[in-house]
Amino acid sequence: MRSFLCIIFSLITAMPSAISQDDSAFFIKSIYDYTLEKGSCDQWLAHLSDSIGGRLAGSENAELAVDYSYRVMEGFENVDKTTKQPCTVPKWERGDKEEVKIMWGDDMRELKALSLGNTIGTGAAGIKGEVIEVFGLDTLEELGSAVLKDKIVFFNRPMDPKRLRTGHAYGEAVDQRVHGASRASKHGAKGVLVRSVTTLHDDLPHTGVQSYAADIEPIPSLAISTNDANYLSKVLESSKVEAYIKNNPQVLDSVTSYNVIAEIKGSEFPDEIILVGGHLDSWDVGGGAHDDGSGCVHAMQVFKTFEALNYKPKRTLRCVLFMNEENGLGGGKAYAKNSNAHNEFHLAAIESDAGGFTPRGFGCSAHPSVFKPFLAALQGFEEFLEPYDLYIKAGGGGADINPLKSQKGLLIGFRPDGSRYFDFHHTTADVFENVNVRELRLGAAAITSLVYLIDQKGL
Amino acid sequence: MRSFLCIIFSLITAMPSAISQDDSAFFIKSIYDYTLEKGSCDQWLAHLSDSIGGRLAGSENAELAVDYSYRVMEGFENVDKTTKQPCTVPKWERGDKEEVKIMWGDDMRELKALSLGNTIGTGAAGIKGEVIEVFGLDTLEELGSAVLKDKIVFFNRPMDPKRLRTGHAYGEAVDQRVHGASRASKHGAKGVLVRSVTTLHDDLPHTGVQSYAADIEPIPSLAISTNDANYLSKVLESSKVEAYIKNNPQVLDSVTSYNVIAEIKGSEFPDEIILVGGHLDSWDVGGGAHDDGSGCVHAMQVFKTFEALNYKPKRTLRCVLFMNEENGLGGGKAYAKNSNAHNEFHLAAIESDAGGFTPRGFGCSAHPSVFKPFLAALQGFEEFLEPYDLYIKAGGGGADINPLKSQKGLLIGFRPDGSRYFDFHHTTADVFENVNVRELRLGAAAITSLVYLIDQKGL
Repeated sequence: MRSFLCIIFSLITAMPSAISQDDSAFFIKSIYDYTLEKGSCDQWLAHLSDSIGGRLAGSENAELAVDYSYRVMEGFENVDKTTKQPCTVPKWERGDKEEVKIMWGDDMRELKALSLGNTIGTGAAGIKGEVIEVFGLDTLEELGSAVLKDKIVFFNRPMDPKRLRTGHAYGEAVDQRVHGASRASKHGAKGVLVRSVTTLHDDLPHTGVQSYAADIEPIPSLAISTNDANYLSKVLESSKVEAYIKNNPQVLDSVTSYNVIAEIKGSEFPDEIILVGGHLDSWDVGGGAHDDGSGCVHAMQVFKTFEALNYKPKRTLRCVLFMNEENGLGGGKAYAKNSNAHNEFHLAAIESDAGGFTPRGFGCSAHPSVFKPFLAALQGFEEFLEPYDLYIKAGGGGADINPLKSQKGLLIGFRPDGSRYFDFHHTTADVFENVNVRELRLGAAAITSLVYLIDQKGL
Repeated sequence: MRSFLCIIFSLITAMPSAISQDDSAFFIKSIYDYTLEKGSCDQWLAHLSDSIGGRLAGSENAELAVDYSYRVMEGFENVDKTTKQPCTVPKWERGDKEEVKIMWGDDMRELKALSLGNTIGTGAAGIKGEVIEVFGLDTLEELGSAVLKDKIVFFNRPMDPKRLRTGHAYGEAVDQRVHGASRASKHGAKGVLVRSVTTLHDDLPHTGVQSYAADIEPIPSLAISTNDANYLSKVLESSKVEAYIKNNPQVLDSVTSYNVIAEIKGSEFPDEIILVGGHLDSWDVGGGAHDDGSGCVHAMQVFKTFEALNYKPKRTLRCVLFMNEENGLGGGKAYAKNSNAHNEFHLAAIESDAGGFTPRGFGCSAHPSVFKPFLAALQGFEEFLEPYDLYIKAGGGGADINPLKSQKGLLIGFRPDGSRYFDFHHTTADVFENVNVRELRLGAAAITSLVYLIDQKGL
C-alpha cells in the first residue's frame, strides 16, 4: 500500500481540479481507476482472513476483528465518528475434531464432517444408530416415528445444479440443514447427518447454522461432504448401515459483542443515511474470506476511496460491519433497534454478502408502499453502471439490513458472480488465497459507484 | 458421463413431446438444464488438458488432440460428416529449461523465464550483456543504437490494471512481446527479456508468440515473471546489471497438421453455415485449459446438447477446432481459403477463445457494408439471453474466424468474465484444475443458446 502522502501526491498530480462531482461518468471512472490500481481492500481482507482467521461471533477472533476494523476506519481522514455498537450474541464452540464413521457388514469408512452451528454434542461416548436416508423434510414426515425412532437421519437432498442462481438453489436445499435436527427429533431420532450444501462433488464438509425448535429435545447435527454423502447413499442401496458420531461442541451463555460503525456526516441532507456494510463475523473454520470478509472490506473501501478522491458526501454515509449474521443476527437487530429509537431514516442500505467475485449488479427491495418509485430511480442510474457491466434488478437485500425495512428506505444487495460462492461457503477453503484481488476490487468499485450515485442524485 | 441410452431415457421421461422448437424460451431453458446437469465438456477438457497436455501446433500432443476430438465428434449421432482438414503449421520446440541470471556488484539472482514462441536460441555458451530497461517500443527508439548495441533489452511496460477489459490491457501491452526482439535487434541488441503480460504480481513467466521481421538478425527473446521484472527494475535503479541467458529452442521445418471439423447439414437452409469453434492448439507449457481447450469443448458441447435434445437444425452447423492459432494461424487461413474456394457462405461464425469463465455475453463484428442490420438482428435476441445475464455488444470476433470476414457474414466472439484469464494465460498454471466446471458449462449453454437462436430465426 502506498503511504498516505504518496496517495495525496498522486491525486494532486493526476486529477487536480478536474473532478467535478456533477460529472458522474468521469467521477465513476476515477473511482474505478483508483480502486483497481490502489485499492486497500485486499490487504485488509488478508489481515481479517489470514492473520485473524475464522471469526465466529463471541469468539476471541471476532473481538480481534472488531478492534482491527475499528482501528483502520478510525484512521480514515474523512470519517467523523467511529463507534463500537454493543449487541448480544450467542456463544458456541466447536470443540475437538468431529468423528463420524459408517459401518456395514465387515466394512467401515470415516466421513469428513463438521458440527453444524449451535448443535449440541454427543457426549464422550458418542452415539450409534442405524442410518435412514431421506431427501428433505417432507419425506421425513412420510416415514414418521415408526421408522425414525432411535435412528440417525441422513438428509441427502442435493443442491440443484440446474438453477441459474446458485443462491436460489442454496435456499431450496438449506432447510434440511437448518431444521433437520428439530424435525427428526420430533420422531425420536438420535442424531442427524446432513449433505453439505454445495453443487461441488468434493471432500469438504460445509458447516452453517442449525436451530432447535422450542418444543423438541435437541439432538446432534453434523454436515458431511458431498463425496461422503454420495458414498453413503450408494452403500445404503444394498446394505443396512450404522453410523457412529462423536462431537463435543459447547453451547455457552450469550456474550456482548459489537457492530463496528464509521460515519461521514452529510453536508446537505444529513438526515438521509446511506448505509454500506457486510458482516464481520464468519464461521470458525476457514478465514471467512468470501463470507463475509469481502463484504466488510468492500464497505471500508468505499470510505477509503472517497477519502482518496476527496469526495464530500451530501448525505450521511455509514459503513457498518455487522456482528453475528451467521448464527443469530444479534448485530443487525441491535443496529435497527437503535436506529429506530433515534428516529433515523436510511434512504438506502447496501449489503455485500455474496462473496468477493466479479460484480454483476445489484438487486433491491423495499416496503411495498414505496418500492416502485425507488426501483425506477435506481434504474435511472443504469446509464452510468451499464458501461461497467452492472445491472439493477428487483429482488435482494441482506440479512443484516432487512430489519431496517420498516424505515421505508431502499434495501440493496450487491450481486457478484455466484458460480463459485458455494464452493467455499462455510468451509476451511474460504480463505484469502481463494479470493481474486482484481475481482474483489471490482466489487468495491461497483459499490462505491452506486453509493456515489445515490448520494449525488437521491432516490 | 451417462451412457447414451440413459440420456435418451431421461429425455423421454423428462421432456417428451413438450419441446417445440418455436418456443425459444422453453428450449433455451432445456439447453441450460441439460448442459448444467449433464454436460460432457468438462470431461473432454480434462482429457485434452490433463491427459494430453500442452498442444503446440506441430507437436505430438497436437496430433493426439486432433485424433481425440475427431473420435469424440465422430461418435455424435447427429453429425453428418467429420473431417480432418490439412493445414501447414510451423514447428518450434522449447528444448531444455531456460536459464536466466542477473548479476550486479557481488550479487546474483536467477529469474523465472520462458522462451517466447518462435524465438531462436542463444547457443550452448549462452549470451551475456548489460541490461537496458525500456517501457515499450517507443522508448526503445528514443534510446537508439548508441545505447542499445550489444545490450540485452528489458521491456518492462506493465499491463494496465485500470482497464476494465483485461483483453484491452493485454492488447496495449503485448506489442513489446511480439515485436520487441525485432526492434531491439535493429539497434544491435543481442537479446531481449520481456515482462510477462499479466496484471498479477507472481512468479509465473507467461510465454506467447513473438515474430521476427524479415529484415532483421534474429535474437533470443524470453519472458520473465512479473515479480522478477519488478525485482530487476528495482535493482536497475541503483546498479548496472548484467544478464546471462541460455536457451536452446529449435526452429524446425513446417509440418502438416489439421483442423477438426464436424458438420450437421441444415434441413431448410443448408447453404447458410453457422460455425462454432475454438482452437485446439495451445502453448507447450501447462495444459491449454482456458486457452483454448475451453473454447473447443464449448463448441463440441453445442453439438452434444443438440444431439441430446434431438434438435434438427435448419441451417448447416459446423464445429471447427482450429489448429495453430497461437503461432501462425495456419488452421484459420486454410479453413477460410478452402471455404472461399467452395463459394461457401458463413452466416455466422462464433469463436470461444477467452477462457472457460462465467459468460457475460457476445461481441460481434462484420464487413462494414453489412454490420448494422446484423447487429440489430442479434440484439433482437436479447429478450431470450438477458434472463441468463448475457449481453450483445458491438466489437469482437476471433483470430481463427476473422479470415472469413470477406464472406460478409457475422463474426461473433464469446465473452466470458475476463478478470482471471491473464492470471493463467500461456503459463504452466493453465490447467484443468483452474477451470470451474459450472462456469465452463454455463459458457457452453450460452453459446448453444445463441447458435439455436441464429439457426431458428436467421439474421
